[in-house]
This record gives sequence, C-alpha cells and structure tokens, in this order.
Amino acid sequence: MSLHSLIRSGKVSVFLLVLLCCPVLCSGIPDPAYRDYLIKEEMSRQMGGKVPLTDAEMQLNAQLQKMKRQEMGGSQFPPAMHFFQAKPLIERSAVYSFIQRMPKGAALHVHDFAMVDTAWLVKNVTYRPHCYVCFTDDQSVRFLFSLQVPKSIPHCSAWTLLQTLRAKMVNCTDLDDSFIRNLTLFTDHPEEAYPSQDVVWKRFEQAFLVVWGLVTYAPVFKDYFYEGLKQFRADHVIYLDLRALLPETYELDGKVNDRSWTMRAYQEVAQQFITDYPDFLGARIIFTVHRYVCSAVRITEAVKEAMRLQKEFPETMAGFDLVGREDAGRTLWYFREALALPKDLGDNLPYFFHAGETNWQGTDVDQNMLDALLFNTSRIGHGFALTRHPLVKELSRKMGVAVEVCPISNQVLKLVSDLRNHPASELMNDGHPLVISSDDPAIFGANGLSFDFYEAFMGLGGLRSDIRMLKELAWNSILYSSLSSQLKDKAMDMWTKQWDKFVEESLSYQN
Amino acid sequence: MSLHSLIRSGKVSVFLLVLLCCPVLCSGIPDPAYRDYLIKEEMSRQMGGKVPLTDAEMQLNAQLQKMKRQEMGGSQFPPAMHFFQAKPLIERSAVYSFIQRMPKGAALHVHDFAMVDTAWLVKNVTYRPHCYVCFTDDQSVRFLFSLQVPKSIPHCSAWTLLQTLRAKMVNCTDLDDSFIRNLTLFTDHPEEAYPSQDVVWKRFEQAFLVVWGLVTYAPVFKDYFYEGLKQFRADHVIYLDLRALLPETYELDGKVNDRSWTMRAYQEVAQQFITDYPDFLGARIIFTVHRYVCSAVRITEAVKEAMRLQKEFPETMAGFDLVGREDAGRTLWYFREALALPKDLGDNLPYFFHAGETNWQGTDVDQNMLDALLFNTSRIGHGFALTRHPLVKELSRKMGVAVEVCPISNQVLKLVSDLRNHPASELMNDGHPLVISSDDPAIFGANGLSFDFYEAFMGLGGLRSDIRMLKELAWNSILYSSLSSQLKDKAMDMWTKQWDKFVEESLSYQN
Repeated sequence: MSLHSLIRSGKVSVFLLVLLCCPVLCSGIPDPAYRDYLIKEEMSRQMGGKVPLTDAEMQLNAQLQKMKRQEMGGSQFPPAMHFFQAKPLIERSAVYSFIQRMPKGAALHVHDFAMVDTAWLVKNVTYRPHCYVCFTDDQSVRFLFSLQVPKSIPHCSAWTLLQTLRAKMVNCTDLDDSFIRNLTLFTDHPEEAYPSQDVVWKRFEQAFLVVWGLVTYAPVFKDYFYEGLKQFRADHVIYLDLRALLPETYELDGKVNDRSWTMRAYQEVAQQFITDYPDFLGARIIFTVHRYVCSAVRITEAVKEAMRLQKEFPETMAGFDLVGREDAGRTLWYFREALALPKDLGDNLPYFFHAGETNWQGTDVDQNMLDALLFNTSRIGHGFALTRHPLVKELSRKMGVAVEVCPISNQVLKLVSDLRNHPASELMNDGHPLVISSDDPAIFGANGLSFDFYEAFMGLGGLRSDIRMLKELAWNSILYSSLSSQLKDKAMDMWTKQWDKFVEESLSYQN
Repeated sequence: MSLHSLIRSGKVSVFLLVLLCCPVLCSGIPDPAYRDYLIKEEMSRQMGGKVPLTDAEMQLNAQLQKMKRQEMGGSQFPPAMHFFQAKPLIERSAVYSFIQRMPKGAALHVHDFAMVDTAWLVKNVTYRPHCYVCFTDDQSVRFLFSLQVPKSIPHCSAWTLLQTLRAKMVNCTDLDDSFIRNLTLFTDHPEEAYPSQDVVWKRFEQAFLVVWGLVTYAPVFKDYFYEGLKQFRADHVIYLDLRALLPETYELDGKVNDRSWTMRAYQEVAQQFITDYPDFLGARIIFTVHRYVCSAVRITEAVKEAMRLQKEFPETMAGFDLVGREDAGRTLWYFREALALPKDLGDNLPYFFHAGETNWQGTDVDQNMLDALLFNTSRIGHGFALTRHPLVKELSRKMGVAVEVCPISNQVLKLVSDLRNHPASELMNDGHPLVISSDDPAIFGANGLSFDFYEAFMGLGGLRSDIRMLKELAWNSILYSSLSSQLKDKAMDMWTKQWDKFVEESLSYQN
C-alpha cells in the first residue's frame, strides 16, 4: 500500500504524517540518514572499502581496529615523526607486529642493492677473506675483494686488507659501526644530518658507492640476492619485481662477468631459493639505468640491451626503467626516441617508470608522469606529484596504472615530513590503483615491507582504514605485478593459503 | 578538397601520404600534438587557466614569469622553508614586491585581534597613559588600562604602571622587544621553539591573552580596527570579512560596553575609514565564538545572539562561525541542534565554518567539513583536510563553496612544513573554488595578504601559475565574499580600476 493510498484511505491522516516526519523534514538539522549515507559512500570509495570479509576476518579486524585506536591516541604518533626517530616506537607497536606477521603479497618497488640489512654486509661479507678497504677524503669508505693489493683510487687512502686491520684491533665494534653508518642513512638526528634534499641525495648516492665493491664481487652478488629474498620472505612477502642495474661482476682474480651472467645469477638464485622455500614464488627483474647520462645514445643502447635480455631471459626479465634523482636528471621526453625504439621495432618492452618523485611543480621533470603514461608505462614509481595533476591522475586511473607508493623513502629523501600529509592518502581514499613498497629499505634502516605498510596503514589511511585496506594492498601487489596471469593465479593461491592461516593463528593467539 | 578526394584524384599518392605522416603515425614516440593538447587541457583547469588577458597584461605577465623563474632557480626557495626564516628572503623578492603592489581584492579569513602589526601595539598603545602591566609565572605578560592599580590576578606579578616602569629605565628597547615577542609567535628558530602542535597552539592562544587587555579597552578597540583597515589598505586590499569575537569592551573608569556597542564601533569605524579613504569598500563581521565550550547551551545562546545582531546590524553582520583549535574542541555535529536553530525559526543566518584544519584522518573532527556543507556553509575556513575526502570535495565544488586557504597559518601551526606540499595546490590545479587569506597575520609576523599570496603563487601554484591565477584569486575574493550582489559589483568596479592602474604603472615602471 502506497503512502498516497494510505492517506486517501484515511488510515493515516496527513496531520499525523507531518508530525511523524517532522524531526527530519521540519528540523534545521541535516537528515542523519542522508549524512550517514554520504559517510558510508565515502568509506566505500576508500581502499578496501569494497573488500568482503569472512566472520573470522571481521573478528580479527575488530581487534586490529582496537589496537589502532589505542596507538593513535598515544602521545607520540610515529607517522608524524621522522622514521629514524619513529622506528623504535614502531617496533614496540602491536599494530606493527600484526602487520609484520601478515602475508603482504609482493614487493614491487625495491632496488637491487638496498634489499639486505647492512649489518649482514658488515658482519658477514666484510669478514670474508681478501676484502680490502680504503677511506675516502670525505669520510666514506670503499671496499674491494682482491688477491693482491688493488690499484689505488683517487681521493682514497691506500687499500688495507681488512683482516690485517682488524687483527691489530682489540675491539672491532667501532670500525664495524662506522661501516654500517656509511652503508645507511640511518642516524638519530636526521634533521641536522640532512638539512636539504641536496645533502640527503648526496649521502644516499654515496651509500651505493660504499656497497658497490662488496655486492659486485660475484660470490657475494649471489649470496646477497639469496639473503635479500630470505629477508623479504621473513617479512611475509612472496614475490619481488626487483629494479636492478645489472652490473658486471668481478672474480677474485680480476675476471669480469658480463650482464648475461648477472641475469643468469638472478634467475638461478631465485630458482634455488624457491626450491629451498616452496612457499615463495620468486622474483623478476626490471632493468634500470641511470638517468644522469650525458647523451641519449646511452639510453638507446640500454633499451636495446633490455630488448636483448628480454629475449634471452623471457621469464626473468620484466621490463625497463630509469633511476636516480629525477630533479637532477634528464626527462623521459628528452629520451623519447630511445624509449620509442621497442614500439618502432614491433617489440613489447614493458616500462616501469619512476615519475613524479619531485616537489617541483610545473618543471619539465614534473611532466614525467604524463610521459610515462604516454609511453604506456605498466606502473608509476612513486608518483608523489600525481595529485597535483588532476588530468594525469584521471588518465592513470582509467589506464589502470598503479602507483608504487614508498612512504618512508619519500620522507627520508625529504619530499614530505609528516606522513599524514603524504599525497597518496588521497589516492587511497579515492580508490586509485596503488601498491605500497619500500624502495631502499636497507639504506633507510627498514626491512621488507612492514615498516612502510605500517606508515601507510596508520599515517596515510587514517582511523577508518582497516584490515580490508591491508587485504586490498596485498591483492593489488599481485594484481599489478609483472607476473603472467597464470603466475598471478598461482601467487593469489599461495597468498590466500598464507592469509587464511594468518587469520586463524592470529585469532587463536589473541583468544 | 578532402584528403580522400585528394588521394582519389591522384594528386597525392597513398605512398607519399604514409611517408609524410610516418613520423607521427608509425613512430613509437607519442604524438607530440596529443601530448601538447593534454598539457594545455591540464593548464586550462588550473586556477586562472581560463582568465583572458589584455595585451598589456600579457606583457606584464611575461615580466612576472621571468622574475618567477629566476627566483625558483635560486639556492633557497622560501615556500619550502618555515615562514619565519623565509620572511627576510621574501621581502627582498621581486615577485613579492609585485604581489605587494597588486590590488588583491578582499581578505575573507582574518581574525579581529591579529590584524595589526604588533609593533604598533607596543609603540603606540602601551605608551598611552594608565597602561598597567603584570608578568605571569610562565614568562608572559598581561596589560590593563585603569585609573587605579587593578586588582591582582592569579599567577601574575603585582600590576605596575608602565609609564613608571619605563621612567626608571635608561633604555626601553629590551622591554618593548619582550612585549613584541609575547604578542607574536615570530622567532628565529621556530623548529626548536615549537616542537609540536600542542606547544605552538598553546603559545598561539596565549598571544591572544596578551593582546586582550589592550584591545578590549574601548578607545584602543576603535583605534586598533582603524589601524587594521589602514594596514590592509596599504597592502592593496579593499574589503574584509572579519571574524570577530565581539567582546565586551571597558572604559578607564571600569564601565563595560556590551556587544551591541562593539558591533556599532565596527560599523562606525569602517564608515569613518571609507569617508577618509574612498578607495576602500569596508568590512563586515562574522561573529565567532569559541568551540571549547562545555555545553551546547552556550552555542545555542551564541546562535540566538547572532540572529539578534543580524537584525540589529543587517549591513555589517555577515554570519556566524566557531573558532579555536578544531582537534581540541567539539564537532559541528555535536552542536547540531544549536546550529539548526536559525532554519528551525525560519531565519537565514549564513555560516562560515572553520573545518578541516586538522591532520587527523577519520576522527569525528575530520567530519566537520561534511557537516559544514550539510549546514549550508557559505565558505569553508582552511579545509586543509578536504583533499583527503573525495566525496566532500565533490560536494563543495558542486555547491560552489570556496575554501579559505591560509598557507602561512597552516605552516606556523604545524599542519604542513614544505608549502609545496600544501593540499590546496591540488585544489588550485583542479579549479576548486578558493581564496587565499592570512588568518592571523600579526601573530605570524606577516601583514595584509601579500605574504600568503606570495606563498600561494610560488609554492602552491608552481612554475606554470601566472598573473591569471593572481587575477582569479582577486576575483574570487570578491565573488565569494559575504557582500550583497550590488556591493560585489561595486567592489569589482573599484578593484578593476585599481588593477588597470596597477598594470599601467607597472609597465611604465618596468620600461
């Protein structure tokens, strides 16, 4: 019976109806039902807003949200602090512990020589025989493995065999600690140590020079990658799209191995790792070259090399990217002829461009995000500047191009200080495709993905984001990976099994 | 002749056509024309993107953009620094000088007792007869005008007549400087002085207590407002929507004037000022009360008082707002019954709510922006958190509700450090209605609107925003003011005359 006929039948008088509806219709207070609808509509757009939960997951979610509310009410809020100062707080956090144990899927934005905890490099690698060290004029160090004393290099002391140096010392802790300090940006007073982007980028790039002589030593190269996979697996990650420079490696006798050796090493080590740990899916390689080159010819050569490697290692080679500080390098458009080469030759070389890792608006570099999309990039690395470009943001969403958000990296490299202001917060709230990654965890004193997931969950997501957001982040990491659809299915199966086990164990652990 | 008939006629062979088009059609390089179209489309969405320019304006714009590029290429970029440290740099900037001389229209978000340079208060007001001072336990001061020694107040030294105190001193500079320090947040080392939002808000609110005894002295109250209008006019502002607490004022003999006296004082002083300076349009008052009240009854009373004042002073009374730190106060929804009162009574009391001046996402306070819109707010004060709420952002755009963006205030009160990351950058690039204002310029060591315009133009707008953005900001300040449409027309006429003169003089000055 309609309202109209109810009234006409005399069963409800108009007077009564007005009286009943008055609290809503006649009051100046906005209709609470409409308000509620708008709030729910907004929440459904948020990352995870449409993810269904099982009863068990809902139960776990209630526990998680309780922990979250408690931690957000504390006197210190880690995402508002510099990660270097927040880290000890995060490590004591129940939410972090939850996130650490949680299967997180894949890490899609990690660089080759920043995977492994620097302590491992110092305690394991530098203690191997034949490791030489020299000390540079600017308080840094260089390492090299060699049978004889290596040729001296400019602005560096004479090479000393570390074994000999250490033998003379009563206690090597200070020396080892100084090595660790050189391998990471981590410090107790980041604001003083790194007053500007220029300073922090200089130290950041120097850290890679320190690690270089260690990790390009062929035996270490393989061990490092194996150890890296181990550390990501320990953080409950099952797969990596690894950005790799694919350097030549050297042997003790000075022999040099070419790039194909390096690719093969990645492939073989990953295979060995899967054999040792069948709950891990593997890794693929995004070949990266530096954007600070003087001539576009170098990029043309690199693109050709990428196409060659793709043919030689179709299963391992995922695509191509340019690395280095965007503001200091050439733009994608500058390299347009080189980047057009695959299409010109009828090849399909997937791109995974870094773009928008900048605070400068309206510069040529700030155009990289649009150009990455025009070159059909598979994902956008960082995309920190994306929200400043509404049209580019629309394009990336329509094209289904995920942004690889690396909160701690962006903070340490001084794009943003308080992570609640990270622009990806908006992308998450508007359901833009994105994944969370860690960029260079070892250099930032982080590891795996968990610290970045924590920052994203607590700082970017706000009080309302819950287990459904974490679930969608894990799903996204598989969905937007470079894996074939067949391997994506396999990854989803693996992840789902681990997730269900995690939910079950967490509930029994809590109860 | 169409392409098709050209080919059919044999005048152009298909072969030749393919050859001609190949650089675009066959190359892997994205079509530069399409790229160009996307870039231009994005720029047309930006604030000012659709503003037409005269030849003279285009000429001036070229000069402005040249200055802008030069300053953005410098070693220090003021919007990336704390305003207290950037201020001396900005004062030397050619872009700032341009903006300072430029007619900026109206100031729509300024608070009553933070309009006037604090030096004026110390050098003029505290030197008037009968001014007493006392020094608080926490290194602050209080002032009071009185015929006799005032009654002592808790946590404060005995009252001393300033005239007597100064007479004993050889040099009063140190004392006066200490007064100035108490009246403003300005300091050379803001990061050390204000480590957290709690600390900076405490000092911020204390500055209002210091100024209180001076400006609520009835004669000073009028002089202060006159001086405030003078300083805004000197900064080339023609009108203000002033947020005012409308306190009772006191006379030397202790007599107290009520709120109607205060409103009348505003009205009369503004009228006098227009008579003295006919190139100024005036000011209207947004009655504000503190949101830290214990009971909603107080807000109900305030809303009733606002309705009463609106009837008594229809030309001067613009509307109603709540002030104070949002995170520390009650939400708009908590006060919903009080705020519904005007509509319940068939009254139209315009609202100008502060909302979204927060970094906390997902809290009840973070809901204020939605509720402000549901209560049909005329503008949103700050709206710092708006971009985190895509749905609310859509609503405010559709409803034509402008955001009052106060960059320096947001930075000093620690919502954001690097102003290139201010979320209103995105609103500007997406054509969301907004105006720039200065909130509490005197307390931040700023004045008028120019420093905030500079930060918005250089920091939020990026390299591409130009004179058209500045023009749209000025237009918006009139369009979104509380003025009647008739007075808006008048304001536009006044502004246009001043603008045309500015353009002409700037060009002849430059040539």
